[in-house]
Amino acid sequence: MTVEANIRLLQLSLPETPRPLGDYVPAVEAGNLLFVSGMLPIEDGATSFVGRVGQELTIESGRKAAQLAVTNALAVARDAVGLNRLARVVRLGVHVACGLDFREHAAIADAASELLNHLFKGRHSRLAFGSSSLPGGMPVELEVIFLLHPKESGVTP
Amino acid sequence: MTVEANIRLLQLSLPETPRPLGDYVPAVEAGNLLFVSGMLPIEDGATSFVGRVGQELTIESGRKAAQLAVTNALAVARDAVGLNRLARVVRLGVHVACGLDFREHAAIADAASELLNHLFKGRHSRLAFGSSSLPGGMPVELEVIFLLHPKESGVTP
Amino acid sequence: MTVEANIRLLQLSLPETPRPLGDYVPAVEAGNLLFVSGMLPIEDGATSFVGRVGQELTIESGRKAAQLAVTNALAVARDAVGLNRLARVVRLGVHVACGLDFREHAAIADAASELLNHLFKGRHSRLAFGSSSLPGGMPVELEVIFLLHPKESGVTP
Repeated sequence: MTVEANIRLLQLSLPETPRPLGDYVPAVEAGNLLFVSGMLPIEDGATSFVGRVGQELTIESGRKAAQLAVTNALAVARDAVGLNRLARVVRLGVHVACGLDFREHAAIADAASELLNHLFKGRHSRLAFGSSSLPGGMPVELEVIFLLHPKESGVTP
Repeated sequence: MTVEANIRLLQLSLPETPRPLGDYVPAVEAGNLLFVSGMLPIEDGATSFVGRVGQELTIESGRKAAQLAVTNALAVARDAVGLNRLARVVRLGVHVACGLDFREHAAIADAASELLNHLFKGRHSRLAFGSSSLPGGMPVELEVIFLLHPKESGVTP
Repeated sequence: MTVEANIRLLQLSLPETPRPLGDYVPAVEAGNLLFVSGMLPIEDGATSFVGRVGQELTIESGRKAAQLAVTNALAVARDAVGLNRLARVVRLGVHVACGLDFREHAAIADAASELLNHLFKGRHSRLAFGSSSLPGGMPVELEVIFLLHPKESGVTP
């Protein structure tokens, strides 16, 4: 199953590529890797997720924010190289804005991982961190590096 | 225009390569990528920027610190591989030491991005994070990955 | 000297590969790079290091935690690709959970760097950051990217 087919199967609707928050681009291709900019839980240019997980926001909200950020990463990849060139996620970094005593980073990160694992055959490496603050006061920021199929492989990955 | 010519055009003077803060090297080349160590706002071995943005330091100071760290990244790349081998910045990570309620991470990161965009034709992917503390109490630390021209391409990139 | 011989020389015993904390894999190979998941100071599935460096934990404890996390990274690499394929560490990121006024990030990171430098000929690039919290309340998390020898080079790297 291709990533595109899996997205349809999950009835997952990808948003428009989120507009960068400054003077940079959503993603850069380098060799067989696609480096994606920090992905935030933004939808239609705004976020309904503001606050720290474990404080203003529940773990469940943090998980939803992480999933929204994943759909943004997929939208960015679709527009940068096309979904059919995505071989797998090499590395996922999950930065969680949270209080000092928060320990459940993995619960937030798993929401992103599980969604990606429905779409890609090979699983990814992952890092999770707590952060005292993230851009715009948002609860989650994702770092994503995709492995790409060679351009020559066309639409039959 | 080459990076070197653009640096001259901006009358930007690159510092000496900053000395690592420990038992590591300023950069490592791997395939077509140059991974640069964490770049700090250090000049002549010292920093005039200590504190958190939005607390002890203004946004304007944070922006100057970010620009100084960019010049250090360029100095490191110059000494590691030569400026003419730099094709573009693949990924810029901007870590900002700031208070819990700081939301203007993009304003600090843009100071670094804008300087890089004066030097390189292709823009970079970017991530920005808040940090509760950075080495030496400094306000900004940059993560930089450069894409390199192949060695064979010599001085006409 | 190979990495394996250096590990024997140091009488360093590598643990079993730590079990991921969620739905991801310990490492992903991409081209000539091995991206390792966030490595924590875990031993036999548990950690004896909980707390922030400079608060509940001394710098010396933080250094031991960093070294334990390095042995986990080596165990992951051994099981993923074999120690003989490790050419060097390209990049080491050291995230230290610490208080707001902590400045000695380099002292913690150096414990990891020094151990790696006993094992590998080429030194690595490095980044160190403070974090308000890390998964499970642990004091250190490592980000590691290895450069790999090609598969063809077999056991004589």
